[in-house]
Amino acid sequence: MRLDIVSLFPGICSAALSQSIIGRAWRSGLVEINLIDLRDFSHDPRHSVDDRPYGGGAGMLLSPAPLFECLQSLADERSHIVFLCPQGQPFDQSQARRLAEIEHLILVAGHYEGIDERARQRLMHEEVSLGDYVLTNGAIAAVVLADAVLRLLPGVLGSADSAVDETFGSSQLLEYAQYTRPAQFEGMSVPEVLLSGNHETIADWRRRQSLLRSISRRPDLFENNVLSCIKDGDNSHECY
Amino acid sequence: MRLDIVSLFPGICSAALSQSIIGRAWRSGLVEINLIDLRDFSHDPRHSVDDRPYGGGAGMLLSPAPLFECLQSLADERSHIVFLCPQGQPFDQSQARRLAEIEHLILVAGHYEGIDERARQRLMHEEVSLGDYVLTNGAIAAVVLADAVLRLLPGVLGSADSAVDETFGSSQLLEYAQYTRPAQFEGMSVPEVLLSGNHETIADWRRRQSLLRSISRRPDLFENNVLSCIKDGDNSHECY
Repeated sequence: MRLDIVSLFPGICSAALSQSIIGRAWRSGLVEINLIDLRDFSHDPRHSVDDRPYGGGAGMLLSPAPLFECLQSLADERSHIVFLCPQGQPFDQSQARRLAEIEHLILVAGHYEGIDERARQRLMHEEVSLGDYVLTNGAIAAVVLADAVLRLLPGVLGSADSAVDETFGSSQLLEYAQYTRPAQFEGMSVPEVLLSGNHETIADWRRRQSLLRSISRRPDLFENNVLSCIKDGDNSHECY
Repeated sequence: MRLDIVSLFPGICSAALSQSIIGRAWRSGLVEINLIDLRDFSHDPRHSVDDRPYGGGAGMLLSPAPLFECLQSLADERSHIVFLCPQGQPFDQSQARRLAEIEHLILVAGHYEGIDERARQRLMHEEVSLGDYVLTNGAIAAVVLADAVLRLLPGVLGSADSAVDETFGSSQLLEYAQYTRPAQFEGMSVPEVLLSGNHETIADWRRRQSLLRSISRRPDLFENNVLSCIKDGDNSHECY
């Protein structure tokens, strides 16, 4: 994948994406990442890219011209342009999987009060929201989306199955409780079953834990992912 | 507010939170931010903080001991400790407003496959999820939560009302379309009404835009925030 991130803060993106798992993938060439500073497309002597909204109101908007020039220079017909904003469709793991299939993904991060509507309508292929909350800085949102998508590219995670067994993995449920050494800590013990060495019993315990945790914490997920499978007459293991 | 972020990547948090609006608030003392490296609480010569899960499985877990030592050194009875993980309650703007009232907020960012369950049960006051997706790095999630909360502190946003009029602001709806100069761009015009100078007509147009956008893009929000108000017999302007 080639991933371009257009923002006013390429330094934030660089700091976040050059570390750890994603940083390793970037350095090894599993993904090509380009961090583009929108200010490079301003012809203003102060590199300004914002202006006041028509009709009044608080805050500043990103002007259309630098966005048009920037995206027209980056994109061709194979590119897919995603604008991060709280009015977009809520991002989730199935969207991450869909975006991970794209050959050339361009993320556009807003800032200030928003961007000119004409740039949204003409340039963006879709609008995605991280969740129902507001941030000061779209570059942070772009980093989250990039991390969630890039970790799904083949070879990025060290162990092949570590993206399967997790929350919102193939089971679509919350992950079970996990424990590591020491077996006794501050008066609390690791559940006996995990020390048993019996892989089948452990797998059963974990599946039950996942179900119980999903029912108690996220009845909405349980309803959508498990009960709907049962209603459809599908009681195979892939369902839960 | 005092905000402590415990992670393996204080550099990511520092790069993201030292910029722009939040950076200005940090430098001016509107918020005190402490970025804590969990590895400083490892007594291992390699500063290791992770170990393999009991019962087998992919990936590594954060060990309980460094988390206990770290959080016991930071927290007193006024502190509120939030663990970021995909099994937590989904974060939204009302949670951001609630957390913005806290005097001493501690965010704990996971990494690797997760953290020891005993540390979750004994140390964390609540678990929060950014959304139904998985990240490689909890430090990125902590930055998002910090940004969403800190921007609500008094004095952080430049203009007093710019957090009221926005998406998920007092109206609980998606924000209307916005336009800035030039009035004509690539054959597209700014809507006449925004050039009219009539504040009442503009406010009406924007309210209608917000409603239409919410109905078409997020019928769930519209149902929860507007229709439920109407059903309750509350048709005051605060509702929409």
